[in-house]
Amino acid sequence: MNIQEEALKLHEELKGKLEIAPKAKVESAYDLSLAYTPGVAEPCNKIHENRDDVYKYTVKGNTIAVVTDGTAVLGLGDIGPEAGLPVMEGKAVLFKTFGNVDAFPICLATKDVEEIVKTVKLISPGFGGINLEDISAPRCFEIEDRLKAELDIPVFHDDQHGTAVVVLAAMINALKLTGKVMEDLSVVINGAGAAGVAIAKLLMKMGLKDVVLCDRQGAIYEGREGLNDIKRQMATITNLDNKKGNLADIIKGADVFIGVSSPGVLTADMVRSMAPEPMVFAMANPVPEIFPDDAKGAGARIVGTGRSDFPNQINNVLAFPGIFRGALDVRARQINDEMKIAAAYAIAESVSVNELKENFIIPYAFNKNVAARVANAVADAAQKTGVAARF
Amino acid sequence: MNIQEEALKLHEELKGKLEIAPKAKVESAYDLSLAYTPGVAEPCNKIHENRDDVYKYTVKGNTIAVVTDGTAVLGLGDIGPEAGLPVMEGKAVLFKTFGNVDAFPICLATKDVEEIVKTVKLISPGFGGINLEDISAPRCFEIEDRLKAELDIPVFHDDQHGTAVVVLAAMINALKLTGKVMEDLSVVINGAGAAGVAIAKLLMKMGLKDVVLCDRQGAIYEGREGLNDIKRQMATITNLDNKKGNLADIIKGADVFIGVSSPGVLTADMVRSMAPEPMVFAMANPVPEIFPDDAKGAGARIVGTGRSDFPNQINNVLAFPGIFRGALDVRARQINDEMKIAAAYAIAESVSVNELKENFIIPYAFNKNVAARVANAVADAAQKTGVAARF
Repeated sequence: MNIQEEALKLHEELKGKLEIAPKAKVESAYDLSLAYTPGVAEPCNKIHENRDDVYKYTVKGNTIAVVTDGTAVLGLGDIGPEAGLPVMEGKAVLFKTFGNVDAFPICLATKDVEEIVKTVKLISPGFGGINLEDISAPRCFEIEDRLKAELDIPVFHDDQHGTAVVVLAAMINALKLTGKVMEDLSVVINGAGAAGVAIAKLLMKMGLKDVVLCDRQGAIYEGREGLNDIKRQMATITNLDNKKGNLADIIKGADVFIGVSSPGVLTADMVRSMAPEPMVFAMANPVPEIFPDDAKGAGARIVGTGRSDFPNQINNVLAFPGIFRGALDVRARQINDEMKIAAAYAIAESVSVNELKENFIIPYAFNKNVAARVANAVADAAQKTGVAARF
Repeated sequence: MNIQEEALKLHEELKGKLEIAPKAKVESAYDLSLAYTPGVAEPCNKIHENRDDVYKYTVKGNTIAVVTDGTAVLGLGDIGPEAGLPVMEGKAVLFKTFGNVDAFPICLATKDVEEIVKTVKLISPGFGGINLEDISAPRCFEIEDRLKAELDIPVFHDDQHGTAVVVLAAMINALKLTGKVMEDLSVVINGAGAAGVAIAKLLMKMGLKDVVLCDRQGAIYEGREGLNDIKRQMATITNLDNKKGNLADIIKGADVFIGVSSPGVLTADMVRSMAPEPMVFAMANPVPEIFPDDAKGAGARIVGTGRSDFPNQINNVLAFPGIFRGALDVRARQINDEMKIAAAYAIAESVSVNELKENFIIPYAFNKNVAARVANAVADAAQKTGVAARF
């Protein structure tokens, strides 16, 4: 059997990848009287007196919703909430396995921004955080912004920020190897959806100045016709020289290519046109923008992809379990840029100075120590920036 | 420590009574490639092609939402969605322990009927059923009716139907003992909220003709001032003699008292005024409408309460885990009256003819065989009435 057949068989045999397991045993009338009536009235009363006690007596403090509308699932696109469920279940498995975070899939039968925001708010009393997942751009930006403003629990769109954090981690180590600094780099990001926008913003927060976002029409620049809100906004803070043209034009002389776009769009010739010894992060999945051998052959010094069978896998699982673990541990009200940056450094520093080399700038996805390091760093940053309710 | 303190300690130590446990292990890159990318794309594609396959490859078919707005939690009243969470978690524990049904609490931050209906519909793609819980009357009736009409998965308000099923089970066995028949009984139901209304309807479905519902103002009769919609509707189908008066007036000559009301409202004198050897089901919790010794002393032949420390405990846990187990097993689109009646007979028949006596008309809540019997009976009834998608 190939991997597709194996995966199908696994899903059919398990009938889904999650179960809701009791932590309280109910094997006697006495057990029942504690976990249910009449004893359960006691924590109910405490929470009614002081709503904050919901964190003391219930699952809320360790439980997050993995929310999707099924519009941008993996590379499959708008396949609907039911078809998105296997991915959300998988995400929940990873949250629990790597971060001991209880995550439950919520698949929404609407694509309307207002309805999504409203629904998530109305179900929020039982959750300690919201992980938005596979919601298409540009709606994902408005949904996240609205929920962040209107909820007092952390809201995190992993397709944006999880990806941005791991890319930043990779860049931190790549810069250590090459001796370059963020402020001097010239970066081209191909793909101006959720991930591309978030990567640009986070790298700029770290000092990057020269960055151009490209979409299928080429460079995004101020004044380009037909830009949506977020692209228009990005045009004002990126591409300061207002460059125009397609990827082949824009990539010339760049130090870094970051691809969150489509298979094969970066050619060896384009890599040759970049600055000497460039970095290439080609994260289209499963077929990258350029294969590592081709990029290396064309002069790239450091190459990363989204795949586990090549070196330097940029995998969100290095970030999201630890980020939520840390945020929940200190009851952070939000996940701010400082917390994301702390997460990126924690991931980067999980590769020791001795191990660090061109083909090993990012820890393996299965390094179980990473999530704990990320959690500590994120919790610490939440406390330092005053968004933590628990110390 | 008393039971209140023990319960509080348990809830604080566990920090909630549920966890979301992976059924798929992710301990290697290969595991990850099956449970998550790239393998997970395969079940996603199948479901996208044929939405029904969501039952084949995901948790949907075994997962229900336990939905509340926190307005009628236990006997505590309108304590809000956060304070209702410990009860919903407890319910989920019972669903899993007794029925192997994965149940997840959804606590809603709204009391608005329209918003509740809308929210439940929007989150329904990931659920195989909806258990409504602790939503106050009369809103609970409209919410359930709307959701039943608008969703193709079973919707069940346990405070109504779970209670009605177990009361019917108790009545079935009580009638066996006394040799009476439903058609000839005179029944007074004190309490015209969710449970009282559902009990009246289910018993009438079983042939009961002479039944009067009472609320705090006394008998509900056609033409009484200030009745809400559901009470006005019930007035047209119950109390056919249009009796007026308070409980003491109405109870005279009745064969059966069913209390889903308040502590101590049924006096020994009232029991003495009933027909000879009456049945008394006094289910107010934790203090019943009358204590069993007092009812027996006043001539009652069969007495049931909601408490585990007296004989004949009317406990919903005998019904809801098996009902949903059976409904999910055959993918029933709804839980209809035939399925509820089948559940009641299965519960009643769990007490063998040899065991059956005045103080043992209903199986113990901890009889683990009951849920499986109920599930089989419910699945069978679903198939016979044509509401099952799976045979």
